Amino acid sequence: MKIIGLMSGTSADGVDAALIEIASGNPLTVKHRYSHVSPYPTELRQRILQLATPPGGTASEVCRLNAYLGELFAQAALELCRRARVAPEEIDLIGSHGQTVRHLPRPQKEGTLEVASTLQIGEPAVIAERTGITTVAGFRTRDIAAGGQGAPLTPLTHYVLFRDAQKGRAVLNLGGIANVTAIPAGAPPSQMVAFDTGPGNVLLDLAAFRVTGGQTDYDANGELASGGHVVDEVLRSLLGHAYLKKPPPKSTGREEFGPPLLDDVSRRFPALSPGDLLATLTAFTAEAAAIGFRDFIAPKMKIAEVVLTGGGARNPVLREMLAERLAPATLLDPDALGFPARAIEAAAFAFLAYLTWHGRPGNVPAATGAKAPVILGAISPGRNRPGAAQASPAPAAAAKPSAAPPGAPTAGGPAQPKKP
Amino acid sequence: MKIIGLMSGTSADGVDAALIEIASGNPLTVKHRYSHVSPYPTELRQRILQLATPPGGTASEVCRLNAYLGELFAQAALELCRRARVAPEEIDLIGSHGQTVRHLPRPQKEGTLEVASTLQIGEPAVIAERTGITTVAGFRTRDIAAGGQGAPLTPLTHYVLFRDAQKGRAVLNLGGIANVTAIPAGAPPSQMVAFDTGPGNVLLDLAAFRVTGGQTDYDANGELASGGHVVDEVLRSLLGHAYLKKPPPKSTGREEFGPPLLDDVSRRFPALSPGDLLATLTAFTAEAAAIGFRDFIAPKMKIAEVVLTGGGARNPVLREMLAERLAPATLLDPDALGFPARAIEAAAFAFLAYLTWHGRPGNVPAATGAKAPVILGAISPGRNRPGAAQASPAPAAAAKPSAAPPGAPTAGGPAQPKKP
Repeated sequence: MKIIGLMSGTSADGVDAALIEIASGNPLTVKHRYSHVSPYPTELRQRILQLATPPGGTASEVCRLNAYLGELFAQAALELCRRARVAPEEIDLIGSHGQTVRHLPRPQKEGTLEVASTLQIGEPAVIAERTGITTVAGFRTRDIAAGGQGAPLTPLTHYVLFRDAQKGRAVLNLGGIANVTAIPAGAPPSQMVAFDTGPGNVLLDLAAFRVTGGQTDYDANGELASGGHVVDEVLRSLLGHAYLKKPPPKSTGREEFGPPLLDDVSRRFPALSPGDLLATLTAFTAEAAAIGFRDFIAPKMKIAEVVLTGGGARNPVLREMLAERLAPATLLDPDALGFPARAIEAAAFAFLAYLTWHGRPGNVPAATGAKAPVILGAISPGRNRPGAAQASPAPAAAAKPSAAPPGAPTAGGPAQPKKP
Repeated sequence: MKIIGLMSGTSADGVDAALIEIASGNPLTVKHRYSHVSPYPTELRQRILQLATPPGGTASEVCRLNAYLGELFAQAALELCRRARVAPEEIDLIGSHGQTVRHLPRPQKEGTLEVASTLQIGEPAVIAERTGITTVAGFRTRDIAAGGQGAPLTPLTHYVLFRDAQKGRAVLNLGGIANVTAIPAGAPPSQMVAFDTGPGNVLLDLAAFRVTGGQTDYDANGELASGGHVVDEVLRSLLGHAYLKKPPPKSTGREEFGPPLLDDVSRRFPALSPGDLLATLTAFTAEAAAIGFRDFIAPKMKIAEVVLTGGGARNPVLREMLAERLAPATLLDPDALGFPARAIEAAAFAFLAYLTWHGRPGNVPAATGAKAPVILGAISPGRNRPGAAQASPAPAAAAKPSAAPPGAPTAGGPAQPKKP
């Protein structure tokens, strides 16, 4: 099956699109075909970040951006097809993560109930309608409904791509928020440990934007951080964050590591120079990840290699700080293992779409805290027949839904997700 | 197939749940099995109405209420099963409309695009997880994505239930917003005319709440209205509303007929007595519907009978005003035609779930303005096998998703929506 994954992270810098090919068999093989990033317009990024930062954003903005982002996600999928020289009719499925604008996995009192929630926008009905491709989306909500944190959802993909019979490997994804998947040598998926370690790029991006008066929205090559020094007092204070001590399963977001935290640092340490601020936040990001490894992974397994993914992997200051703290484990680029770094998150949602389509669970309860493995997401039918491409060379999208009156049922049995 | 439909209208008074049974064949037969209303707690109703009235509500509130309403919709489905003495395992599908909190079908400029949008909440992942039943939801967004208004979506159901070989029939649904489906005698669905006529109960409910200082949230039996007189000057002014003259396809919501309109009336006519206000708004509601019949239905077909549905059908003052204005057509209760009034809207979303499951379009382009008939909604897999109940007496929900590692694909072909 040819599947496109679409993802926009908490940094809200654009749509990561990846085309993968999955061949069934035991084990499954997942091959990267092509990937591309369609950046958001600057104004849109600001609108999303405002919406995603409590108490920002109205219900109208949620409604409008949900549809607008659906259009942009569809465009990103079609742009990927053009660049990969693959006709949309050849694609079986799209798996879309959407754009997170709220993540509230801690249950809150609602009437007589305790309810956790999460909100990803980027309307899948728009994606299915514009591309004609059956689209699976809404992955996190189902895990939360099953008692999980709704994150991380990448562990099964990390497992399929990076497991090793001889070496314990971890994947550390430095997106806006950082998450880790730790895979013991030669172990089944149920023995993985996975959780959000804390901030990824989020604090660095915010601080870079502020100290440059909006001239840049990230610390390119760690240049700002390398012009300063880590200030111990500030770092110690940041390391007191309660999230770091919480045992997995756990997940976090911009609500905990975002503008309010940075405001707090600025208020308490007003004399910090821009370079010192960036250096200290970079150290905090690395140390938060290292604490996760030390407290929650090391007691359970030996990790020999850490695969670095996400935008933060391109920040040499952050890499060096991580290398020191994670030694003797060595840092690896996923490209060296045959899968381009930036494509992994998007590919994960393509893989989850594959699992959902086949009626199979996509979450790992040990990672998310869900009560059980569950089939994630909802399927918005396209005009194609997923899985039919191999069986028939006829372009599936050529067949349009008929306007048959409801009195005349179609022949044959109902479509149905298979039992896993 | 046994299917549950779940619906909460713009009045936000609770979840209407209906269990229907659909037998395939030509024509399809749709039988009402049981229906029930699970009222919202009063505080929740106020939260929803606040969220649904621009600029009301934050993204956090959308996120939280989406999950909370998912829980209440699931409870409503399970409560219906208990009352109907049907095990949830016997139910094939749930079709959930959700709760509309925004409806913005008029395209707005977003970047370089023109984008229309609508937002229904009541997370289907929660419904599927709590009930174990495969749930179809998100019907309106797909029609909007296909260039439609996202409303009305009930015409195919009205057609299946109420078409007549000899008589032109219309169904006038007096929910928060009123919508009409007009079915010419002996005609195919493509010749139906359907649109929102304007206000249903929305202005009456709001006014009743205000003039009684919150003692009641609707004009029970039209008692407030029958204590006053229609004030011509006010009625004429209301009838100047631009929506009424707009030709179909068209749809509207609380944005146009809601608190702002009522505020405007109160400001311009401060001396109106409570009774006169209610009488005049009731006349406006009836007249708005009558204008729709006169201008957009009468030129195309003769209507002999008008089936009244929705809460407003129980308001005798509104009924009488409608009877006068729609004569010589006679008013009918759907119960007389074998289907209980309050169950119809919920049943419509059960029927749409049936169509989606069978890979068939659920919208009528002439009604919504969509460019084409499209398969509506997204399918959240349950733990059941829809359609399997007839084939096998074993309770489908007993089989749980396995925790099989992703390396081992299941046997057999992929699940897939059928071509219509």
